[in-house]
Amino acid sequence: MIQVYTGNGKGKTTSSLGLIIRALGHNWRVCLIQFMKNDWDYGEIKTLSKMPGLDIFKFGTKDFVNPKNPAAIDYQEAESGWVKAKEILISDKYQLVVLDEINVAVFMKLLSIEQQLELCNLAGKAELVMTGRYADEQLIARADLVTEMYEIKHYFAKGVASRKGIEF
Amino acid sequence: MIQVYTGNGKGKTTSSLGLIIRALGHNWRVCLIQFMKNDWDYGEIKTLSKMPGLDIFKFGTKDFVNPKNPAAIDYQEAESGWVKAKEILISDKYQLVVLDEINVAVFMKLLSIEQQLELCNLAGKAELVMTGRYADEQLIARADLVTEMYEIKHYFAKGVASRKGIEF
Repeated sequence: MIQVYTGNGKGKTTSSLGLIIRALGHNWRVCLIQFMKNDWDYGEIKTLSKMPGLDIFKFGTKDFVNPKNPAAIDYQEAESGWVKAKEILISDKYQLVVLDEINVAVFMKLLSIEQQLELCNLAGKAELVMTGRYADEQLIARADLVTEMYEIKHYFAKGVASRKGIEF
Repeated sequence: MIQVYTGNGKGKTTSSLGLIIRALGHNWRVCLIQFMKNDWDYGEIKTLSKMPGLDIFKFGTKDFVNPKNPAAIDYQEAESGWVKAKEILISDKYQLVVLDEINVAVFMKLLSIEQQLELCNLAGKAELVMTGRYADEQLIARADLVTEMYEIKHYFAKGVASRKGIEF
């Protein structure tokens, strides 16, 4: 099955992390590939990197991608992440594969929607979870489950900054 | 801060689980209290129960609550969960407290909205996360962050049953 978590509200990446620990509890083999997030100081990565049964790969740089003018390295990293995702899905070694923020990589045209749909076609029996704002309409049409995380209210609007332990 | 995850889509409990492992990665003290879910066979519980820094308490029975006619035990369990949540918040020992499915307990009138708001008032510096469908309007007004998990599509509609490793 293909699951998509999108929308502007908090909870997309965290829900995929919850799916990971649920699957690991039943001794599933799990792979997490993060796009546009090459920073290992995230709390979740500190916890998850110690867990047997889970392989983590990160692509991107420590800097935010400029949506109007991505750098060459941003394209290269997204492409490398896509190649890794293909390899992982083709290997058929994992029961759950999470591609975190891939929807944003497609929205920013670092990857094409055709590339994303190709990954869907390779999922086979694996549960494939894709997160990030701005999920493409074609992806939504293709997916088996789509949740939109809709922001009713957010403390960011009150000027609260991103907090260690909560946002990363 | 008070965070609320509600709505009819998949991702409410899982996002709170993701918050837990993120916080644990930064060595926070975390408490998870689950309402209406007294079953330890969930994958996430198998994984989380081994993790240092996290205390888990579960209330409810293994059976679903009949929304039209809850049993005496359902009221008792919800009340016990509320008493535990109060005690945990008053102890001020935890930086993150997750009250999973408490919104549903309030919706089914196993707890009152006044009881839920009292917990908000006791949160102090702790991050308090409350999940479950049907969050009360007064809770939404009181919270600092509210995400509605909106179901765009769900494989349950195609007749797929709840799956071990994915739904529990």
